[in-house]
Order: sequence, then structure tokens, then C-alpha cells
Amino acid sequence: MNDTKTNNNSLIGQSIPRIDSPSKVTGKAQYAGDIILPGTLYGKLLLSTVAHAKIKNIDISAALALPGVKDVIVGKDTPCIKFGNWRLFPNTQDELPLAVDKVRFIGDEIAAVAAITPEIAEAAIALIKVEYELLPAVFNIDDSLAPGAPLIHDENKELTSNISLDRKIDVGDIEQAFKDADYIREDSFLVHPHSHAYMEPCATIAETDAEGRVTIYTSTQTPYIVQCLLASTLGIPENHVRVVKPAIGGGFGGKMELRTWEFCAAFMSRRTGRPVRFVLTRQEELEIGRRRHGMKIKSKVGFKKDGTIVAKDFEAYLDGGAYNSMGPTATFLCGNFGAMLYRYPVYRYRGYHVYTNLPPSGAMRGFGAPQAMFISETQMNMAAIDLGIDAIDLRIKNAMVTGDKIEGVTTISSAGFVESLEKIASATQWKEKKKNLPPNKGIGIGCYSFISGGVFNWFNTQYHFSACEVRAYDDGTAHLFTMSCDIGQGSDTVLRQILAADLGILPNMIRLTAGDTAMTPKGDLGTWGSRVTLMNGNAILDASKKIKNELAKIVSVKFNLNVIHDVAFADGRVFAKANPKYGMTFGEAVTMWVKMNRGEELTARGVYTPRDKGLTTPAYSFGAQVAEVDVDPETGVVTVEKISTAHDCGTVINPLSVEGQLEGAIQMGLGYTLCEQFAIKDGKTLNTTFLDYKVPAAEDMPQIVSYKIDTYEKEGPFGAKEVGEGLVIPTAPAIADAVFQATGYRCKDLPITPEKILKSQGKI
Amino acid sequence: MNDTKTNNNSLIGQSIPRIDSPSKVTGKAQYAGDIILPGTLYGKLLLSTVAHAKIKNIDISAALALPGVKDVIVGKDTPCIKFGNWRLFPNTQDELPLAVDKVRFIGDEIAAVAAITPEIAEAAIALIKVEYELLPAVFNIDDSLAPGAPLIHDENKELTSNISLDRKIDVGDIEQAFKDADYIREDSFLVHPHSHAYMEPCATIAETDAEGRVTIYTSTQTPYIVQCLLASTLGIPENHVRVVKPAIGGGFGGKMELRTWEFCAAFMSRRTGRPVRFVLTRQEELEIGRRRHGMKIKSKVGFKKDGTIVAKDFEAYLDGGAYNSMGPTATFLCGNFGAMLYRYPVYRYRGYHVYTNLPPSGAMRGFGAPQAMFISETQMNMAAIDLGIDAIDLRIKNAMVTGDKIEGVTTISSAGFVESLEKIASATQWKEKKKNLPPNKGIGIGCYSFISGGVFNWFNTQYHFSACEVRAYDDGTAHLFTMSCDIGQGSDTVLRQILAADLGILPNMIRLTAGDTAMTPKGDLGTWGSRVTLMNGNAILDASKKIKNELAKIVSVKFNLNVIHDVAFADGRVFAKANPKYGMTFGEAVTMWVKMNRGEELTARGVYTPRDKGLTTPAYSFGAQVAEVDVDPETGVVTVEKISTAHDCGTVINPLSVEGQLEGAIQMGLGYTLCEQFAIKDGKTLNTTFLDYKVPAAEDMPQIVSYKIDTYEKEGPFGAKEVGEGLVIPTAPAIADAVFQATGYRCKDLPITPEKILKSQGKI
Repeated sequence: MNDTKTNNNSLIGQSIPRIDSPSKVTGKAQYAGDIILPGTLYGKLLLSTVAHAKIKNIDISAALALPGVKDVIVGKDTPCIKFGNWRLFPNTQDELPLAVDKVRFIGDEIAAVAAITPEIAEAAIALIKVEYELLPAVFNIDDSLAPGAPLIHDENKELTSNISLDRKIDVGDIEQAFKDADYIREDSFLVHPHSHAYMEPCATIAETDAEGRVTIYTSTQTPYIVQCLLASTLGIPENHVRVVKPAIGGGFGGKMELRTWEFCAAFMSRRTGRPVRFVLTRQEELEIGRRRHGMKIKSKVGFKKDGTIVAKDFEAYLDGGAYNSMGPTATFLCGNFGAMLYRYPVYRYRGYHVYTNLPPSGAMRGFGAPQAMFISETQMNMAAIDLGIDAIDLRIKNAMVTGDKIEGVTTISSAGFVESLEKIASATQWKEKKKNLPPNKGIGIGCYSFISGGVFNWFNTQYHFSACEVRAYDDGTAHLFTMSCDIGQGSDTVLRQILAADLGILPNMIRLTAGDTAMTPKGDLGTWGSRVTLMNGNAILDASKKIKNELAKIVSVKFNLNVIHDVAFADGRVFAKANPKYGMTFGEAVTMWVKMNRGEELTARGVYTPRDKGLTTPAYSFGAQVAEVDVDPETGVVTVEKISTAHDCGTVINPLSVEGQLEGAIQMGLGYTLCEQFAIKDGKTLNTTFLDYKVPAAEDMPQIVSYKIDTYEKEGPFGAKEVGEGLVIPTAPAIADAVFQATGYRCKDLPITPEKILKSQGKI
Repeated sequence: MNDTKTNNNSLIGQSIPRIDSPSKVTGKAQYAGDIILPGTLYGKLLLSTVAHAKIKNIDISAALALPGVKDVIVGKDTPCIKFGNWRLFPNTQDELPLAVDKVRFIGDEIAAVAAITPEIAEAAIALIKVEYELLPAVFNIDDSLAPGAPLIHDENKELTSNISLDRKIDVGDIEQAFKDADYIREDSFLVHPHSHAYMEPCATIAETDAEGRVTIYTSTQTPYIVQCLLASTLGIPENHVRVVKPAIGGGFGGKMELRTWEFCAAFMSRRTGRPVRFVLTRQEELEIGRRRHGMKIKSKVGFKKDGTIVAKDFEAYLDGGAYNSMGPTATFLCGNFGAMLYRYPVYRYRGYHVYTNLPPSGAMRGFGAPQAMFISETQMNMAAIDLGIDAIDLRIKNAMVTGDKIEGVTTISSAGFVESLEKIASATQWKEKKKNLPPNKGIGIGCYSFISGGVFNWFNTQYHFSACEVRAYDDGTAHLFTMSCDIGQGSDTVLRQILAADLGILPNMIRLTAGDTAMTPKGDLGTWGSRVTLMNGNAILDASKKIKNELAKIVSVKFNLNVIHDVAFADGRVFAKANPKYGMTFGEAVTMWVKMNRGEELTARGVYTPRDKGLTTPAYSFGAQVAEVDVDPETGVVTVEKISTAHDCGTVINPLSVEGQLEGAIQMGLGYTLCEQFAIKDGKTLNTTFLDYKVPAAEDMPQIVSYKIDTYEKEGPFGAKEVGEGLVIPTAPAIADAVFQATGYRCKDLPITPEKILKSQGKI
């Protein structure tokens, strides 16, 4: 992809502080919810109070009559255009901005109000009367698939059950392979839905110009996706919508789709001619927000006596909730991740995305992988015991290595997995500790691999996956335009670091404009799938290379360089690599370039689209994590004392950012494993505050140690690959394994609660 | 320049309503003063109360101690870097953001305060104590040039008088030419300063990011100029300053420089880390605002008996006030305009820019031309009487025509002047009316010519004079990025009309982003000198041509066009001109282009820089105006009853906009001629409200009739040239001539007041 391997610019690998830190710690950062425009109206949604029903009638007259109410809309007032991220397969687009004939879950959006104060909007919502005709509802996979179950999307005549879509992978002869196995491990698992629990609830403000063009400031990871889908649901040209991403307080996959409040803000802004703003409450977020798919998984793995894996048969049912959302991707990736980490010469996957009358599941950090790998890793730990092989040794025996292929899925272009396993074993004194575990103490292992962005074009964009523009100026500065979104993960800092390193100037000499569909180049799919560092980084290096080629001309002419001499960019200078005195400052070179080009501005666009990279990703991260726990024998409470991680994310661009990702991932992994769980009764989510939905806090965090495995990913910028999502995967299986070592309780049904531990021990 | 002559797109010549009208009539338009950012501090300036003094001491302690005051700065706190628009000659840059050692006029800026409320800021200003050592002051040109006058810029050791700069033009042998003349007309004139009187007082709000980059929203005509000068006075890289132009409520040349409040807002924002805002009061505007130069002019013109002009000797002293400001340009252009309109085979110009202890004069609509042409036109009217030739016939005899050259100055590329004169004569029944004037009625004539942008690079930019970017989209829309500034004159509408016409799509399919130095292409000198339609229009056609070339490829391939066939763009389609059915929609063509280019975005930059176009402009407008007045014999009050104009602005892009410019120009010309006048006593401006500084209102407007002369300017987009400034020129000489016809009072000292008329008649 690029020739950056030889670039040993000292900026790469430096812990440059985050660009956004000062604005965030001083409270200056402007989130979408902080933006109030002149004449703003306050929006509020009416949510369904029933899980499954026909809408017989909606009476909005009292709401409309309330003084201060400027607009009330129901589904029928809208163009009634369905949307969904999987534009490649339009029949997966099953969601309407506002329900028209039916509601399908408690929280389904029915109507919206815009009023001059938030209080009036709320009062107006209470005045809307909805007449329902109740339908039977299903709240889990089994009920949804039972004969006679109500069809949740009966309007889709192609569906004969609540399975909205499936995916099949068949590599090799599965029947024969299992016949050849010496040992077969077969288990069933349940994994639970999990909230993104981002700090910033979704917020949106939309305004409309005199010609009907909409500008929307919204808490999103994917401005381009919101632009396209908002335009199509409004029925206006795509470029009559401008999506601007302000500061974002976390996304984790929960903000990568068009959402109803974005539509309603834009639609009502067009109707009223005034800005319309929605800010979700925490309660609404936890009630109707997307979440990680709960799944029911059956997995069967065959081994030879020596531990060599011969086959895997993996069957997953995903609880999709009421709409597809990003479920197709999760169904797709769950199958891909089921085949990851180890060499499965024969592999079968059956994935089914199932509608239920629950809030829709969507993308969430890991995107099918945490579920698939909790199962794989737990089974590896169980098989190791049965086979009498150390769990790490068993892994090393089967670990994927650079060059491995998964038929029809991918090729592993770089893998530091074996090295991660070896490092974690020695660093944690794995074998010694395991042999000498004190009572109630456990040590366990979990591993992961994750994608560095997806290559499968489900959004069906005709534009490049990533694009940027770089402008270079005579004052020694540059301006980077990128559609990528820093959602708290630090990509603005890292992308600027990549450009600065390549141009040989300081990061603070670079102005950055990001995530504004009217300003930053098309297209860019945004922030998800750990794609930004690799994909946008590559686009940036593409643009940077063009800028450097231009400036090299200047130095070459000015100093009459021999054609064999290369030109280097470092310390704010452009010079002959072989003889640095033949050079000038970056700004001087641009000045001369502008003169040479008779007044042109020096700009370059850079793009990156992965091509012929299989079906999954251009590059995989790998890693191994060891958890050490203490379990209170009386209460069953698990205390995670230490988490050690050895991981391969390719070249580390910014160690501080990598540490931040690791810490955040462990916090999220802890919550997933031990304490976060939706309490749902008859389809209604009961725990809708952070008092009741328990997210680990600072005091819950264990000691964290990490080891970086040196690899170089040739497809990545400066050799880098992902670090944002993969690290959230190993924590659950590692803790579960440690809990097993401490208590004998083997978790096949997340989360691990004290009740489950005590019950397994017959203590309650 | 471009091949648009053959483009007969129906959009050109259409009265498309202004883009900005809805936002302005509904009050939604956001001016700089409407922008309040979180944590905004309110700025206020301390202005000198004396006209000329050394600053002995400034005590800011009491101001600083006032609760709510966050910053107080004086000149010495700043980097003390002088600025001025004439970067080409750095020694003309004579202004400091805040006075350091001396003040030079009443209103000179000494200190600034930023506080949490405007009231506290004002109170703090009152607490600052300045100790002056008074110096003698001069308030007019004669006193300033008298022997022993105080040197206002004694710090500039190159100056030996208060003449800050001069310009000389010598074409031919002036002594001999006057010897050959049959009739010599020699007169002295005084013209007065004139306020822009824009509706929107200057307003600025600046914010600073964590790395010290400043974003400033400011009421300006010239974002790029403000960016450059703000950066240099702050001592930071140019591109660490972003200047954004919000809606602007008029400029007329008064908002084309860096101003003190812009510096102070940015500087104090950097010091405090908070946004800092300044909004001038109307009183401050009229007290310290720039104004049109008052001048003292001697003009001597030689004629042959038959009316043929043989020579002109033109000497102008410009009252520059305390700083150069745009005075160098006015001095330069006054000389150029002195040579305009008629063929002067021999021409001498002596122009002197003189410092006085008055507020600085600057650029104002017409920029040296209203003064120069008031004199020329008045002398033509006087000479016509003496020579016994009709005033229009005399003009026609000497009128410039297409192809005329002014040595060392310019070539006239198109001139509809003779046609204008002929048209106005017939349309107004000039000769008949003049012969049969009722008592107290008068009819008079004045003519004009003006530039369509300047070609002399006084700002010394290294970038193109105009630049734009066009992005074309698959939904049939486009996005135009331009640094040009709509300041109320309607350029956004006209530029979009030009692009729409050329691309064959509707104007409302084009998103427009203008006047944002971080977004819109560099460079562009902004809005002044009637440059926007011609220069930015040309840049747009340059970009549009590139876009069209790309889309023509698509149609050519798709329909296998013969290489001799041209591709046309009209009605939202791209098609073979010879056979329109071979075509597709604009959006379909872009879609295919993106596909052909494997995901690239279709964008093009366009530029325009006039090269080798002499010293003045690429194209001149021309016109003739007739005023009909009634003068009350008892009160001397002049009522202008009708103004008729025949004018040549090349192709009319938008008739409605041209009418608007004409009406605005007549309003401003009326005020200049009859009622607007600064009352200044000992250097202090006394009339600082619109009650006392009398601007004509709607009820003062005469009947207006206009006639468009058909010409085609080959250097202009679709044949267009300027209409924004020239029309302000003829009104004063036309009214003055009419007043002479009605009363016998020949004005050589603007404005024409009832007192002057009555005095001339011995009535008072």
C-alpha cells in the first residue's frame, strides 16, 4: 500500500496527548446537545407502550392545540420511506422513521412533537392518544421461532418466519471431519445483550435553509451514512443534507445508523422553518437504544488427541429485536469470527438473525466477535482440560499465523498471535501460578482477533471507503480534511500524527476538519469496525505522498539534485536525504511551489478502498489476555485483581492512545462479564438508569498490565492495525476461565453473577 | 478567457431572486453580532479623546480590578506589529492595533477591555486613565502642508512632510499641449468625506482553540486579507487564523481592512481562552469609521474650438486622516480615473496623500472615482457652455471607445459609452427639455466609468486573485466553494447563477459555501473594486469547464459520439448538442463518472488572475446619467425629481440585481451630493447618529429610469462587467449640473446645501 516501512520518523510511537483533551477537561467541547440555534424548537418522541400491536388510531389534536406546540407528526405525515444500513440488500431495510401501521417493541417511535420549550414538548406528548389493537408478542429466540409465533414483519411477504436473514459458510466436509476427530467438544451457550452505555446520550439539532437544505448537527459515528439515509427518508437530494459531527461522547457502534430523532429533527425543521432539537434522556437511551446482540449459540469442535483442531460446526441465533439494524453484519461477522484465531481446516457456520418484540440490537464494539469468541475461547479452555494439554499450549498448537487463509473469508496478512501467547505465558508465570492457586483464586485466559475495518460494501457506497484532503501552506502549516469521526477513541490525534510524521512537521501545525459532509471529502464510511487508523491513515498517506512528490520537485530544482537522490521530510524541513544541507523549510518549499504554479494552492486528495481483500478485513489484530480473580466463597462476588494483555496491533502509532483503548476495553469487558445486564419483563426494560444498569466504575478496575507484540502490518499506515475493539473480546472468556479455576463454575450463560456461582456450588 | 459567448443558456439575464432574501426578511440571517459563543466575553475599546498627543502613561489598574473584567490590554501588551493593506510597499503600513507612543486622531484606539457583560466592559473603559502630552494638530490639507506643521508620523524618518505618498503620471508634453489649446478650463474643487453608512455596524467574535488557533467571525468584505494581517499582527502562522464571514449588512469598502477590534478580539481570546466579541455602536462607527477621502483638486483641461480635448493637468490632494489605510489606492486610482471617460492625448497627474489629525479615510464605493469624476464632469459641463457645444455632444466627441488606450494605465476592452450618451439624450429628450426649462427646474448630466476589479497587486498575494472549487454530485447537485463575499450586493446569487447556467442545472441545486478561509480555496482578495462578478465569475467558469470536460467523456463513451460532436449542458441534462436524445441527466453522468474513476469525487478548482492587463482593471463599465431637479427659490432646497441612467455593464447576468445596485447607488449618490456631511470641530466628529448624519431615506428617492446598453465584454463571464460601484459616480455631477441650470449656482465644493445656493444668489 505504501512505502512507509522505511520511514522511521520519530513521531510514530510517541505518546502525543489527545487534541481534544483540553476542551473536554475544561468543559469547552461542544457536543450536539450544547448547540442551541436562534429560534430552536425542542423535540420529543412518543414511544410505544406496548410490545406488538396494530395502530388503530392516533389523536394528536390535543397536543397540537397546546400553546407553544409548533408541530406534531405521526408516521403518515412522513414520506414513509424505509431505511437501514444494508443498502446493498434493500429488502433488509425494514425500519420506518415513525411507525405507521404497527409497533413492534416497547419504545417503537410513533409520533414526535416540536415545541418552544422541552417542558411543553413533553406535555404535548402526554396528550397524544394512541389506540392499539394488541398482537401476541415474543421476547426471546425460542418463542419467536416456535410454530405459530406471530410474524413481526408480516408486511414482508418474503419472510415465512421471524428469521429475517441467515448466513451459511461451508468449508470442507464437516461430517467426515468429525468422524476423524479423536475428541469432540459440543456446547450450548447464551450470551446477553449489552448496552453501549456511552456517556453522551444521542442528541441532534437540525436547521433548514430557505431552499430546503437541511444541516444537522448530530451525535454520530457515520456522517456520510446519516446523510444518505436522511436524504432518502426525506425524499430530497443527498447533498441537500449536511451532517456535521460535533464533539462525541462515545459511540461504540451505537451511533452508526440513521435514527428516528435525526429524521424527526430534520423533517420538522423543514416543516416549521425553525431549528429542531432532540436530546435523549438516559432512560430513553437504555429503553430504546441499540445494544449488543444477545445470542444462542451451539458450537461443536473436533480435535485430534494431540490437540490439533480438525473441524468446527458453529450455529448462532441472534436476537435481533424488532428491526434488522446492523444485525446482518453481526450475523455475517459472527460466522467469520467463529472461524478465527485457530486453524479450522473444516468449518461450518449457520447464522440466523431472529426478530423479537424487543428493542433492536445493533452494532457494538466487537460486532459479533465478543459473542463468538466467548464461546470459542471457553471451549478451548474446556478442551484443554479434557485433552490434558495446557490451555496456552493448545492455543499455540492451533494458532493462526501470518499467511493463513480462511477459505472464502480472508487471508491473515500479519499475526502476532503465537508471540502474544508466549509473552502472556511468561509474563504472568501462567503455568506456575495455575499449578499453585490459593483457595478461591483463579487465573484464566482468553484471546482475540479483530478486523481493521470491513471490506464488504454493505452500505453500497459508490465512493471510496476513506478519503481525505490535505492542503499545505507557505507558513509551514497544513490542513487535513477527513470524514473520519473521533468519537472519543482519539482518531483525530492519531490521524494528525500520521500526517505530521509523513510530512515531517509538528502535529500542532496541522489544522484538522473532520466529519462534516459538506466540507470533508466523500466518501468515508465513518467510524466503526476499527477501520479509522488503517483506512483513513492510508488515505492520508496517499494524499501526503502527492504533496511530498510536489515539494520534492522544488528541492530537486533548487539544489540541482541528482535524479537518484531521494528527498526527505523531517523536522519541518524538506531536503536531500543524502545531504540535508540541500534543503529548505517546509513552508519555503510550499512558497516556491505556489510561485512555480503561478498562484495555485497546494492540495491533494487521498483515498483508500480495500480491494480484493476477501470478505472481511484487510488486517487482523491478535492478542491474549490473562485474568486473575478472587471469588468470595460466601457471597460469590468476583473481584478481578489483575488483567494482563499481550497484543499485536501492528505498529503502535500512539502508545498513550493504545493504553486508553485497552483500559476502556477492559472496563467494558468487565461490565459485560460480571455486572451489566438488561432486566426485561414482558418486553419492557426495567433498569433504565445507571443506578440500576450497573456499569463498572473506576474503583472496580483491576490492575492492568500490557505487553505490545512487535509486528508490522504491510497494509496499514506505518504498519499499524486495529486496537479499538478487539481488546474488548478476551476479558469475558478470561474471567470466566479464572472463575472456573477458583470455583468450579463454568459459565455458559453470561453474565457471571454471584447467584449463578453459588447455585452451581449448591450454596443457594 | 472563456468560450461562453456562444452559450445562450436561458438562466443568464434572468431576474432570479436573491438567495439571502428569505433569511433577511424573516430576521433569520446571522450577522457577526448575532453570534454568541459559550463563555463569550464582551469587548470595548478606549478611544483617544485628543487629536494629537504623546501617551505619557496609561493606568489600567482600576479597570483590571473591576469584578467581571477578564482582560485589559494596551498597545505595549501586543506584539506591536504594524499593518496595512499595501503589503507590496511595507513602508506604507503605518497602523498599530493599539496606539503605543502617540495618538493621532480623536478616536485612535488606545486600550481594550474584555468583561463578562457589555456594561462591565464599558464601566471598565471609563476607569482607564490616560495621561497625554498634547501636540499641535492639523485638521485640513492646507494646515497639514503648511511650513512648521507637526509631523503626524514623525516615527517614519523617510517622511519630511505629512505627505505620506504621491503618484505621478506623465503622458505627452503637457506644456506644449496647453500652448496648442484654443480654450483652457481651470478650476479648483473641494470634495468632502462621506460615510459608508452601512446598516450593520462592525462586529466581531473570536475564539481560540487549545493550540492557539483563532477563529474569527467578522463583518468583513475580505476574509483573506483579514486572515493574513491578523496572523501577522498576532505573530502566528497565517493558517492558524480562520476568518469566517457571516451575513454582512453592507460594506461599501468600509470593511476591507484588518481593524483594531478584530485584532483585540483575537488577541484577548488567545489570552483569556474565551470567545471575545466586539460590536461597534453607531456612534463609534461614525466617529472612527473609515470614510471616503475628502480631496482638494485642481484640474486644467485644454480644448480645441471644436471641442476636442488636447490635454489635462490634474492635481489631487487627498485628506488621508491619521493613517494610510486604503489611501494609496485612492491616490493611485484618482489619477487613473482622472484620465478616464474621454480621450486625453496628453495627461499629467499629481496625487498627494496627506496625513491630518482626522479619522483615516479609506476605500469607499468608487474609490477615488466619484471625486475625480465630479471634477471632470463638472468641467465638461462648464466647458460645453463656454464652447457653445451641447454637453452631450461634447462628450460624444471625446468619448472613449472600445480599443482606446491610456498610456501606462490601460486598454479599454469594451465601451458602450457613446451609446449610453446617445440613449440618455434621446430617452430624456435632453436637448428639448434643456431648452425649455421652467423656472427653478434644472436638468443636468454626469457620466462615469468604473473598473471591474483591480489588477495591481498591492496586497502582494502569492495566490490567485480569485479561486473556487466546484464539486458535482450524483444526485444532480453541485457545491460551489468561493472566498467571495456577498456583503449585500447579491454576489452569492449571481455567482451561483453563473455556475448553474454553465452546468445547465438549476441554481437551487447548488449549495454555496463562501468566505471561510479554512474551507474556501485560497486565495481570493474578497469584495472590493467591483471585482466579484468578473473575477470570481471567471474562476467559476474555469472550474465548471473542467467539470464539463469530465462529464463530456461519459456521454461520449456511453453514446459513442463522433469526435466532432460537442456536448451540451442544459435543463439538468448532459447530451450531444447535435442530437439531444444522446444524453443523460447531470446526476447520471456524475454517477457514471464516479464509477469510471473507481470512487473518486468529481471536483475541480477554478482560478482567475488578470495578467498583463495594464495597471488598473481588465474591463471598464460606462454610463451616463441625467438628473432633473426642482429647487425651492426661497429655501434653496433641492428636490431631485427624476434620475435616468443609460449604462453599459456588459451582459446583465441578473436584471433584478442590477436594478438593486442602481437604486442603491442613486441613494448613496444623493446623500453624497445633497445632505451627508461630517460636522467636525477641532478634529471631533459631532454628528455621530443617523439623526444628525443625514442619509437619504426611501421618501427622498426620485423617480428612477434606466436603460441597459448592450455590450459584450470578452474578459467577463458570459460577457459581464461591473455594476456595483460605477453607478454611484454620475449622480453628484448630474445633480450639480441640474442645480446650475435651475439656479445659476455652480457647485465646486460638495455637498450642495441650500445655504450655498442661497448665498450664491445673494439671498442670504
